[in-house]
Amino acid sequence: MNVPAPIVWRQGRLRLLDQRRLPGSVDYLDIDSIDDAVAAISTLAVRGAPAIGIAAGYALAAAAGRSGQSDRAAWLGALDAAADRLAGARPTAINLTWAVNRLRRLAHAGADAADLVREAQTMHAESEAVCLGIGRQGEGLIEPGTTVLTHCNAGALAVAGIGTATAPMYLRHQAGVPFRVLVDETRPLLQGARLTAWELAAAGIDVTLICDNMAATMMAAGDVDLVLVGTDRVTRNGDVVNKIGTLSLAVLCRHFGVPFYVACPSSTYDPDTATGADVTIEQRHADEVLGDHAARVAVRNPAFDVTPAALVTGIVSEHGLARAPVEETLAAIMAPRHLPA
Amino acid sequence: MNVPAPIVWRQGRLRLLDQRRLPGSVDYLDIDSIDDAVAAISTLAVRGAPAIGIAAGYALAAAAGRSGQSDRAAWLGALDAAADRLAGARPTAINLTWAVNRLRRLAHAGADAADLVREAQTMHAESEAVCLGIGRQGEGLIEPGTTVLTHCNAGALAVAGIGTATAPMYLRHQAGVPFRVLVDETRPLLQGARLTAWELAAAGIDVTLICDNMAATMMAAGDVDLVLVGTDRVTRNGDVVNKIGTLSLAVLCRHFGVPFYVACPSSTYDPDTATGADVTIEQRHADEVLGDHAARVAVRNPAFDVTPAALVTGIVSEHGLARAPVEETLAAIMAPRHLPA
Repeated sequence: MNVPAPIVWRQGRLRLLDQRRLPGSVDYLDIDSIDDAVAAISTLAVRGAPAIGIAAGYALAAAAGRSGQSDRAAWLGALDAAADRLAGARPTAINLTWAVNRLRRLAHAGADAADLVREAQTMHAESEAVCLGIGRQGEGLIEPGTTVLTHCNAGALAVAGIGTATAPMYLRHQAGVPFRVLVDETRPLLQGARLTAWELAAAGIDVTLICDNMAATMMAAGDVDLVLVGTDRVTRNGDVVNKIGTLSLAVLCRHFGVPFYVACPSSTYDPDTATGADVTIEQRHADEVLGDHAARVAVRNPAFDVTPAALVTGIVSEHGLARAPVEETLAAIMAPRHLPA
Repeated sequence: MNVPAPIVWRQGRLRLLDQRRLPGSVDYLDIDSIDDAVAAISTLAVRGAPAIGIAAGYALAAAAGRSGQSDRAAWLGALDAAADRLAGARPTAINLTWAVNRLRRLAHAGADAADLVREAQTMHAESEAVCLGIGRQGEGLIEPGTTVLTHCNAGALAVAGIGTATAPMYLRHQAGVPFRVLVDETRPLLQGARLTAWELAAAGIDVTLICDNMAATMMAAGDVDLVLVGTDRVTRNGDVVNKIGTLSLAVLCRHFGVPFYVACPSSTYDPDTATGADVTIEQRHADEVLGDHAARVAVRNPAFDVTPAALVTGIVSEHGLARAPVEETLAAIMAPRHLPA
């Protein structure tokens, strides 16, 4: 692992690796306010469902410590307002809401700012442990000599630790097992090309970059043994909400007979949402697609799509592997979440 | 049609619209040698299967006129060498070989340089007529109020006239029929974003740009009524060789129940090649994918893929529409080609 940490908490200050500038520059942003944190999350300086949850947790705890409110009710009111702003910075990933609500619940139960910082640190450490657990549960999926295709970045940069979809890869590589990874570049923001290809190569893994529209021809040629991706939310019925382009891969897998696996922390499970159709899909700005090259026309830019449970071969969490039909075994590997009323 | 002509022949000189610089700049390249023509074709300054055939034809005729050879055998030898270089500039599209062989055959039968220029002009005019014919045969596919998804550029910029896949669109738009077009951006060279979106918008057609990996979610939402693409080669069994990403669309169409149509001149038919597996797929340079943003890793960059005939709902040529199973009715709408021995 030669990958810089996406989230650093040191001497009471949050610093975030600016992932917009990777792989060209490795720079950190100082996050000194809720405004800074919301900007970093909404512009994808920090991204990846687990990472934005942890970053928001630290930002909220730090803001609670800076709060000028001497009256506890006012302090809680300011905390709730900050939590709402953080939770609204991106609408799709469940982790963001989950993380800020965890701190909010603690504060309403009597915790002070120092307690919230410790809780954020606990979430951070838990995330590292969860990644390792996902790796242990999922590493058997990668057999020697096979080729895994992944999409977007569900890697060390997206989480804390060894990533989610990448966790089995890192463990297999450390164990000396030979395998190859095909990485989709993941338009429009190119997280595959900029982040996943970079972190896997830095770790010494055999990685090849392709455009999103090339996966079909690789599968048709028999060059893909397994697809393994992360997810931002798994709904009660096992639908998988993940980076735009995931649904396309799942359909191709079904057509070409390639297994389609999803790796995620158990906290990604959202039993309060019945199906993927009930999830708000973030629509992002046209400029991300247009860049400076395209004709100035209308754009649709959904950041995520929904892969129906029926197309999923299996879901790996730190607790185990739910195999198709995933709906039936999902609850056993996932963590029901208790949100405050 | 407010689209600049991709190929201009004036006063004995060939000029090609530099499509690499669109839509930002509308500039023409002077093509004064076979070297110039090969460079323009191989770097995609001129692209699109019909257009590169016409451009190569003019370039070969012009070179024949400039040839210093006074001896006819030497003149033919130089012509053959030039024809081979042009035909080798890109390996996949059949039109390039077809066009230069048409002039070569004429020269070997006694034609002089002026005859070759006239033949190139004939090919150019034929191409315009063929596009109109494709439009007439295919316009019924676009019903009022529907949304057509297209990929890459099989438009006016790729041919001479109103394009191939775009021909039904231009005719329907001229007839006042309302419809929408979704355009895939078409990584890595972005012909959809740079060329198709630009030319359709210039014509006043309602066009929306998406990333290649978004087509699945559009189809899942019921937002695509029809996919219509061009092709670089149709093999004897009806397999369709077209821009990378086409196979992915065809598989998605099958999964989501969306019709998948292909439009092409009858000259695109290659009865001498049994199936798509027999076609050489051009592998292009890694830098096209890496740009200046990606991690420096290995790349696979096939320029085309093969869509099996079984996934094709229909193929439209200027002679008619072959419906699935296309293998059975294909010959009736296609032109068998007679290559010189």
